[in-house]
Amino acid sequence: MIKKYCMKDWKMPVATNAVVMDVECCDWNETLFLDVQKTDETLTFCYHLERKDRIYGLGEQVRGINKRGWLYESYCKDDPNHTEDKHGLYGAHNFFIIKGKEIFGCFIDCGGKVTFDFGYSESDRAIIRTKNPCEWYIITGESVLDIVSQFRLAIGKSYVPPKWAFGYQQSRWGYKTKQDIQNVIKEYRKRGIPIDSVYLDIDYMEGYKDFTVHKERFADFEKFVKDAKKEHVRLVPIIDAGVKIEEDYKVYETGKNQFFCKDREGKDFIGGVWPGLVHFPDVLNHEAAEWFGHFYKDLLDIGIEGFWNDMNEPALFYSEEALKAVYEKAGELNWEQFDLNDFLELQPMINQLGANEEDFKRIYHNVNGRKIRHDKVHNLYGYFLTRATMEAIKKELPEKRTLLFSRASYIGMHRYSGIWTGDNKSWWSHLLLNIKMMPSLSMCGFLYAGADIGGFDGDVTEDLLMRWLEFGIFTPLFRNHCAIGRREQEIYQYPSWEQMKELVRLRYRLLPYLYSEFMKAVLFDKMYMKPLCFLYKDDEEAEEIEDQLLVGESIMIAPVYEQNKSGRYVYVPEDMLMIRFVNAFSYKKEIIEKGHHYISMPEGEVVLFVRKNHLLLLGEGGQCVEEAFQGRIGIVGWIDRRAEYSYYDDNGITSDYGEQNIEVLAISKEEEWRLWVNEKEEGLEKRKYWLDMEDGFHFLESIKRKDWNLYTKDRKNNIVF
Amino acid sequence: MIKKYCMKDWKMPVATNAVVMDVECCDWNETLFLDVQKTDETLTFCYHLERKDRIYGLGEQVRGINKRGWLYESYCKDDPNHTEDKHGLYGAHNFFIIKGKEIFGCFIDCGGKVTFDFGYSESDRAIIRTKNPCEWYIITGESVLDIVSQFRLAIGKSYVPPKWAFGYQQSRWGYKTKQDIQNVIKEYRKRGIPIDSVYLDIDYMEGYKDFTVHKERFADFEKFVKDAKKEHVRLVPIIDAGVKIEEDYKVYETGKNQFFCKDREGKDFIGGVWPGLVHFPDVLNHEAAEWFGHFYKDLLDIGIEGFWNDMNEPALFYSEEALKAVYEKAGELNWEQFDLNDFLELQPMINQLGANEEDFKRIYHNVNGRKIRHDKVHNLYGYFLTRATMEAIKKELPEKRTLLFSRASYIGMHRYSGIWTGDNKSWWSHLLLNIKMMPSLSMCGFLYAGADIGGFDGDVTEDLLMRWLEFGIFTPLFRNHCAIGRREQEIYQYPSWEQMKELVRLRYRLLPYLYSEFMKAVLFDKMYMKPLCFLYKDDEEAEEIEDQLLVGESIMIAPVYEQNKSGRYVYVPEDMLMIRFVNAFSYKKEIIEKGHHYISMPEGEVVLFVRKNHLLLLGEGGQCVEEAFQGRIGIVGWIDRRAEYSYYDDNGITSDYGEQNIEVLAISKEEEWRLWVNEKEEGLEKRKYWLDMEDGFHFLESIKRKDWNLYTKDRKNNIVF
Repeated sequence: MIKKYCMKDWKMPVATNAVVMDVECCDWNETLFLDVQKTDETLTFCYHLERKDRIYGLGEQVRGINKRGWLYESYCKDDPNHTEDKHGLYGAHNFFIIKGKEIFGCFIDCGGKVTFDFGYSESDRAIIRTKNPCEWYIITGESVLDIVSQFRLAIGKSYVPPKWAFGYQQSRWGYKTKQDIQNVIKEYRKRGIPIDSVYLDIDYMEGYKDFTVHKERFADFEKFVKDAKKEHVRLVPIIDAGVKIEEDYKVYETGKNQFFCKDREGKDFIGGVWPGLVHFPDVLNHEAAEWFGHFYKDLLDIGIEGFWNDMNEPALFYSEEALKAVYEKAGELNWEQFDLNDFLELQPMINQLGANEEDFKRIYHNVNGRKIRHDKVHNLYGYFLTRATMEAIKKELPEKRTLLFSRASYIGMHRYSGIWTGDNKSWWSHLLLNIKMMPSLSMCGFLYAGADIGGFDGDVTEDLLMRWLEFGIFTPLFRNHCAIGRREQEIYQYPSWEQMKELVRLRYRLLPYLYSEFMKAVLFDKMYMKPLCFLYKDDEEAEEIEDQLLVGESIMIAPVYEQNKSGRYVYVPEDMLMIRFVNAFSYKKEIIEKGHHYISMPEGEVVLFVRKNHLLLLGEGGQCVEEAFQGRIGIVGWIDRRAEYSYYDDNGITSDYGEQNIEVLAISKEEEWRLWVNEKEEGLEKRKYWLDMEDGFHFLESIKRKDWNLYTKDRKNNIVF
Repeated sequence: MIKKYCMKDWKMPVATNAVVMDVECCDWNETLFLDVQKTDETLTFCYHLERKDRIYGLGEQVRGINKRGWLYESYCKDDPNHTEDKHGLYGAHNFFIIKGKEIFGCFIDCGGKVTFDFGYSESDRAIIRTKNPCEWYIITGESVLDIVSQFRLAIGKSYVPPKWAFGYQQSRWGYKTKQDIQNVIKEYRKRGIPIDSVYLDIDYMEGYKDFTVHKERFADFEKFVKDAKKEHVRLVPIIDAGVKIEEDYKVYETGKNQFFCKDREGKDFIGGVWPGLVHFPDVLNHEAAEWFGHFYKDLLDIGIEGFWNDMNEPALFYSEEALKAVYEKAGELNWEQFDLNDFLELQPMINQLGANEEDFKRIYHNVNGRKIRHDKVHNLYGYFLTRATMEAIKKELPEKRTLLFSRASYIGMHRYSGIWTGDNKSWWSHLLLNIKMMPSLSMCGFLYAGADIGGFDGDVTEDLLMRWLEFGIFTPLFRNHCAIGRREQEIYQYPSWEQMKELVRLRYRLLPYLYSEFMKAVLFDKMYMKPLCFLYKDDEEAEEIEDQLLVGESIMIAPVYEQNKSGRYVYVPEDMLMIRFVNAFSYKKEIIEKGHHYISMPEGEVVLFVRKNHLLLLGEGGQCVEEAFQGRIGIVGWIDRRAEYSYYDDNGITSDYGEQNIEVLAISKEEEWRLWVNEKEEGLEKRKYWLDMEDGFHFLESIKRKDWNLYTKDRKNNIVF
């Protein structure tokens, strides 16, 4: 049950369109669960926390899966130091669930800043505050997963990228020429390390101007794009939010005095970012959004099939106005008599120029003729820009899927694109953060998501990259990305590249399963990755485990995220089949009992756990995603009665994906073990399934093995045993 | 076996006096283990690492107990962001042990920068590099602990503080008046939370001038000090390295043109720190060191018994010269045309003003008439300043112990003072860093050590403070310290202060054991805290465990260092007696078997593990350290044959501590269980020991309990059974 509350005299300045379902609007005084107080300026929601209450959600945020014990802030921010004392990151995902004496979900729909004091000021109180008009939703249900599904149904289906976007992707800020990139492709292909795309960071542009391509360093761009595609590699260019102020530059010229955000005086707002001084497209204005979106066409026309939208919090190195204050201050100083106080005054002024919230009060939008100060709707900027992108793309290519993901985000944007989790570091703690953040993102609808594997900023060590790949092979967005000036991070740069290659090859073998699970999460509003306690909800031992995840319906993973470790503790919440991949094509199986275990996990080995009576699919892999779906599909499991698996697959290219693409594989041991797959449906006959149940049977000695029959049933569960 | 190597034509500019033992000097070409290469400028030590080789040591450093997989730098630095990508902290502790196919220790004695590439550039190579003259020592032995003991013997006995310095200590940068501090004392005493000292951060001074006291805010300072002492609270003032340039200020006036470090031109070097512009005492010059040291006398004379030396890396916010370059740059800029390049040039110039290594090339020392550029001897500065302090104090009070600890440090300084681990953060990861760093500090002789409990910078949450106290009760320096502007961190500020109080009370009950273990570590060159694998050296399961420590000879601890956890995994390396303190005076016992366990550890409970046939002492606690040694001593253990414990105690005040203060308590079950304690020695008769073996016996049902006899034996092990 989902209910909506709002204050009639305190309307949101812009419709966020986060929720697409019609939800009954109730009197705000009757808000369930939350104690709501409104003063002139501030709306406060309070909730008393019992000792054992847990809080889940908030999507892209610092800290753990259980969010209790910190102060979070929803205010999209370009701050690359994701230490545990930060209050927010690039996204604003105001959905959370409290589970304890009561269980309910809450979504605060608000384009401005919202703070979530989850037992920070007082350990037994949750206090949510905002000074901005908002609507809030309360969702009740029988479990966390039920509430998540209801919420996801309300906010609409998540974005689906093309299938190739599930392949391995290589990126680096610092590929300065097309030769650099061709070399990357060559090195990957030469070594047989699968790869599906390479990214173009800001280096490909002319002077960091959006929708330009550097004429010398990336000469014959169209041919370059098409040649790469011949090698099954897509090139994915970046698009930044800021538009360089430069005469005769088409984007600037067509936008100026018309489609850009304004300053207080009504002039186009000026900020400093990579290109130097820029204006920002006023994407809250529908015409401006359309105008900005149509520039993507040029790149689509020459064969580009994916984009990443960056710097769209929007990120600012400085605003012209704030910079003026610094140089006025600097001008006032008697530098000959410079003293500590001057220093302590000037240094923070300069350090706080970037990503300064004060600047957001200096920017104005024009929404249907109304002037809206940016800080009131700040969290919508990246969302609306990315929506504009996808809407423009859809206009061009309505039947095709295009890859798109963004750095800034707000719930609602999940329908138009994925996200990456921004400029992380080559830190072990950020690998762990990646692990903990994925379920929260799933809760908020951001299914196509992932972190920069190996870490963006910082010099990764070989072992960290290896461990990160071991986890990354399970995330939908599987991209290795790294900053300029840092240690080179392509797999082939490392002596142990052959081991890393096995990990990527394993990803490609897992793709039939991972893609199937991803698509079902989209279609049925499920979580792609979830913590153990969401599923094993009465298992107290599972409650605090935040470093193991369920990936889809069949498997659990327990990544290693600490240096110099060759194993780790794993809590196994039910008897499971442990599968240890010593390389992509060789694995060992072992039944492992419910309980706590210390399990050896040397670098380069992937250990996963298949739930009893659930099935894992394994393809034959390949050098690109297309290949990975061509071979036979293996089915691995441990079954003591019956297992069935709803296998989703489609062409991976067109937008007509849906439930019709599911076939159910069922294995039963009523009288004998059998696998049914439809022999009637056309096309499917070509597919060969193979079964690996031997070791499982080894533990079930009484089971007879006979012929395996193939049969497919429809989604209505029509198999007769 | 310890051997020393050096190059005769590449002498160290200053004797570090790190090693006090006469060690045979060998030909450097015959260096064992390490492949040594010398070019004109650089000395390089290489060692091939096998896959399982581990590296321990480096004292105060980032990352784990096993140091493999990162690039470390010995170059004392004031950088408060102790993230895992940093290469060094405030100390320079160049001792490490490699354990694997071979086992050996190495100490690079060098006042300049040394880098330790421990499998960072190449995962199978350790490469140690320095451009500075050095001597190096290779220590061979049969085990890590053996090598540590040999090294510690060579570098001399560690500093011993007065016993009261083992009490709970409260500090905050931001106690602005003596009333603030009196209030802290009042609040602790009122609630019965034990406390032994309160710190005076820079606020107590006049304009941050060393050896001054603010006349209004800290009026009647002597009376204030003495009044506090009547309440059994010592006040511990801070002394910074930089001396304010101010006419008529006695330290400046007596030091100028004489005892300060010089710049290139031979003028007193000028830097900016808290007082504004300062000079730095040239503590490498013996006369200057003596001159600086004698100022401590004024404070000793009015009853001060402890100091902390800060900012002695030396820390610099800016040097005059570097600042000049910034304002020259700023002057050149056309601020009206300020562009991105200007920004990208100016911002780092300003951000890198502080703790900039270039400044260390602008400072010169005068050592016996020789002019030595600071960067060559940088790591000795804090050490020599602190040595000057202690030597001056000893001149005044030769028979008394005085508390002293320092932020910057080098091996050798461990004989003169303790250290705290600098400006950490209120991060869970820094609690873990604290845990992992303690054994490395023990290895290098820094026994009196601890981190700022609760974290210095940052807003601590109640649960983090609780968990940090749970660990902190085991560290010799047990100080809660916090930065100005941050959440107040005194225990009584929190709703759960009563639980925290129990933790502090437990510390006071543990003091007889902890102090005894600390003193034995000093006297016998042992480690006060060590990882499991140092003791259980053939136990493969113990090898990678870095979040459990052995404290002294009898107990193991396994602190919780993650938020929202009420338990954790513990590896128990042998059958042990688990003691769970539900509060300071109530505990439960349970035998726990060798192996992996998941153990419940709710906030506020302390769980520790007593080794079989080892004894834990428990006093009766008290409100100050003095009281904590007055009551009865409890002995808790689980014995199946015989246990003995060498119990060290002394008056805690005078410098004549030594082996003579050990009595051995022995418990045996030859025919019956008995405890021997000497009845003959005077004074000891007053002491009452009590035994809690019941639950232990409960697990040894066949054991008869009879009368307990008391007997003491001497250190020569003369007990006859």
